[in-house]
Amino acid sequence: MNDNKILLSANEMPSQWYNILPDITTPMAPPLHPGTKQPAAASDFAAIFPDALIAQEFSPDSFVDIPDEVREAYALSRPTPLIRAYALEKRLQTPAKIFFKYEGVNSAGSHKSNTALAQAYYNKQAGVKRLVTETGAGQWGSALSAACKRYGLGCEVFMVKVSYDQKPYRRTFMQLFGAEVHASPSDLTQAGRKILAEHPHSPGSLAIAISEAVELAVQRDDTKYALGSVLNHVLLHQTIIGEEARLQMEKAGAYPDIVIACAGGGSNFAGLGFSFLRDKLRGTNTALRVVAVEPASCPTLTKGVFAYDFGDESGYTPLMKMYTLGHSFIPDKIHAGGLRYHGMSPIVSHLYHDKQIEAEAYTQQEIFEAAVLFAETEGIVPAPESAHAIRSAIVHAEACKASGEAKTILFNLSGHGFFDLGSYDAYLQHRLIEHKSPLEHIQESIDRLPVI
Amino acid sequence: MNDNKILLSANEMPSQWYNILPDITTPMAPPLHPGTKQPAAASDFAAIFPDALIAQEFSPDSFVDIPDEVREAYALSRPTPLIRAYALEKRLQTPAKIFFKYEGVNSAGSHKSNTALAQAYYNKQAGVKRLVTETGAGQWGSALSAACKRYGLGCEVFMVKVSYDQKPYRRTFMQLFGAEVHASPSDLTQAGRKILAEHPHSPGSLAIAISEAVELAVQRDDTKYALGSVLNHVLLHQTIIGEEARLQMEKAGAYPDIVIACAGGGSNFAGLGFSFLRDKLRGTNTALRVVAVEPASCPTLTKGVFAYDFGDESGYTPLMKMYTLGHSFIPDKIHAGGLRYHGMSPIVSHLYHDKQIEAEAYTQQEIFEAAVLFAETEGIVPAPESAHAIRSAIVHAEACKASGEAKTILFNLSGHGFFDLGSYDAYLQHRLIEHKSPLEHIQESIDRLPVI
Repeated sequence: MNDNKILLSANEMPSQWYNILPDITTPMAPPLHPGTKQPAAASDFAAIFPDALIAQEFSPDSFVDIPDEVREAYALSRPTPLIRAYALEKRLQTPAKIFFKYEGVNSAGSHKSNTALAQAYYNKQAGVKRLVTETGAGQWGSALSAACKRYGLGCEVFMVKVSYDQKPYRRTFMQLFGAEVHASPSDLTQAGRKILAEHPHSPGSLAIAISEAVELAVQRDDTKYALGSVLNHVLLHQTIIGEEARLQMEKAGAYPDIVIACAGGGSNFAGLGFSFLRDKLRGTNTALRVVAVEPASCPTLTKGVFAYDFGDESGYTPLMKMYTLGHSFIPDKIHAGGLRYHGMSPIVSHLYHDKQIEAEAYTQQEIFEAAVLFAETEGIVPAPESAHAIRSAIVHAEACKASGEAKTILFNLSGHGFFDLGSYDAYLQHRLIEHKSPLEHIQESIDRLPVI
Repeated sequence: MNDNKILLSANEMPSQWYNILPDITTPMAPPLHPGTKQPAAASDFAAIFPDALIAQEFSPDSFVDIPDEVREAYALSRPTPLIRAYALEKRLQTPAKIFFKYEGVNSAGSHKSNTALAQAYYNKQAGVKRLVTETGAGQWGSALSAACKRYGLGCEVFMVKVSYDQKPYRRTFMQLFGAEVHASPSDLTQAGRKILAEHPHSPGSLAIAISEAVELAVQRDDTKYALGSVLNHVLLHQTIIGEEARLQMEKAGAYPDIVIACAGGGSNFAGLGFSFLRDKLRGTNTALRVVAVEPASCPTLTKGVFAYDFGDESGYTPLMKMYTLGHSFIPDKIHAGGLRYHGMSPIVSHLYHDKQIEAEAYTQQEIFEAAVLFAETEGIVPAPESAHAIRSAIVHAEACKASGEAKTILFNLSGHGFFDLGSYDAYLQHRLIEHKSPLEHIQESIDRLPVI
């Protein structure tokens, strides 16, 4: 019998996160203070993050110890399985070997718990009483709610309105773990009220929800802000995925030719990809391909510009040099809500600009076709976000079929789709709205980029 | 670090199911033909089941080989983890050791896949083209839909109306795997039309949905019927849970004092419990307690009678000697839809009557309180059905705290609650309807039991 799952025991779980920064040898543009537009100091982040996380944001160390308490929290669902997709390979009749890392097995159902648990832990250590955050599809908010409950912190979540309406059960999930959930834009913040005054029916965006959360965090002494992607420390925490996957691929006697993950802000992509990219950056495997996959309607890497921009709508955050569609860009209401973000992690952006990684974009129709094929063969209903990675893996596996090459493909199945059945229903009923090319709107928002 | 998960590799997966029948030494009452009321022959089942499953229904062997193709299908999500609930123990401050077997990690999210894959396989081998079934909460229908898709069989599901309305995403899940789904009672069958004529707003019941499914299966040559619980062969397939759990408890250096599972028709209870009960029946561990947990509003074991009754509403099935509330009993619309069944597996009933096992019943309020405590500590949102087992485990762990005994408790977490967030929402909003004691209705339907 084909043993399709490669497992690690809790004691085999890596004890360190991997920090890619020291392996990046080309100079990275620093974050800038939003007011002065001068390089931001660590102290500029102190109003919203605890010191330990700020230190990680700028860490010079290649590996960072995972605190025992965080490893214990991880152990509830980690190490996650690495699975050989034999049934998918057979259906595609491809000579390619397809592996995937499955991050949907934890409480909140996605990779987001990896950083949620770490952030809640460091905030608790710093005496913080409450975290406030934004969430798109709800995966991040779910993960943070569960993590806050574990460490006895309060949790308040601004949920992008379109997802709040599409996914009421995600809200319930967060409430079940004690979180307060608001649809964003809300009338609780100046940022939200301003948007509502101009666009009373705004579907919201991650950029707006971030503004609302940051605004509240800055106002309250006992409250900090938590971000679910983009920043260096968030990506750092996600590398537990790739560090595990390296051990598991070794157990399987394999090494990937192509590593694939979807990318919204870049955290699950970095989580799986960076640990392998290390070999490329260090020159031991220059042929490795690492592919970020995004939605055609929010094509940050493939159609955006590499420029300084705000992480949020109102310009509260530091300016970051990144691929961006402009912070005023409101993506279409696609079902992969977790990928509706105008920007991209500065590290991922820098690596893309340096041509160390690649990017691809697919439509909703394409990704749901791939999702259903995957569910039928591998028996897991994927999150629409993760289905972007599946689509890409299938495209590369089909290329192998055409060329006869038996490449090894590894992708990240970042979460399950049990909360996305409404979206699947739209697909099955042929009610998916395939939006027009967003190019015109992108140009408008890019024209409004801050001048540095 | 406490390694809380006890895992098995796919190659460690047991290769045989355990058949408890040869270990039951007191005489069991045979099933009776619904017309003649004489003991039913194997051939009486031929219209609705393939020969291989009928043979298993009456098998004299203690162990039955699992076909390689079924083991390969199992391997997508099996062996499932056995988890030591350290966090729950700590919260309860109990000296008890609490273990649970987690069956929610597969595609359909519950133990039901264990028999769905086996039944679909044997039907496919027999040349059957299509399976028709009923489903309550949707767990069984989801599992059978996915299994039929795997083996290229058509699938048609009668879903109890109250669940059809409460859980639209379950319907989408089944459709995603190609199934046709009807709310039951429907106007597609004589059984359904009769109910609708008398009770146009009937919430449905498993007994009615079974009648509808059996009626269609009998009418069509290329179609067979599949049942998700109750029958011997279904329980047999579920013993993969207990056979794995025995190996895992051994790895953990532990053996349960108390084994607990929820019971609707009895299949997840049998799945975990029978493999341990074997030791009690064979006299090697007479102190073992095995506890079936049911909802207070559908208390088949705790308030039913041990009598011959039909498995369905219309009297199409053989008569089985079992604990029953009467086949005309319509349980309240509780959120644990998978436990809304009037009867109980004949084997489980016989063992209960012989005092080899125990039974407990809890209210919805009690089980949701336990579910939320479990989610907060162990990070898994359980199905309301499974929360019955959690409640019982907590009760026994608290008894240990009071007595100072460090007992070992093992329960079955039969499924996750990602499709039940609407029910959790009702609980969180204090909108759970706690029904009155059903005793009066039970007496009415018991008075209508068939006369043998």
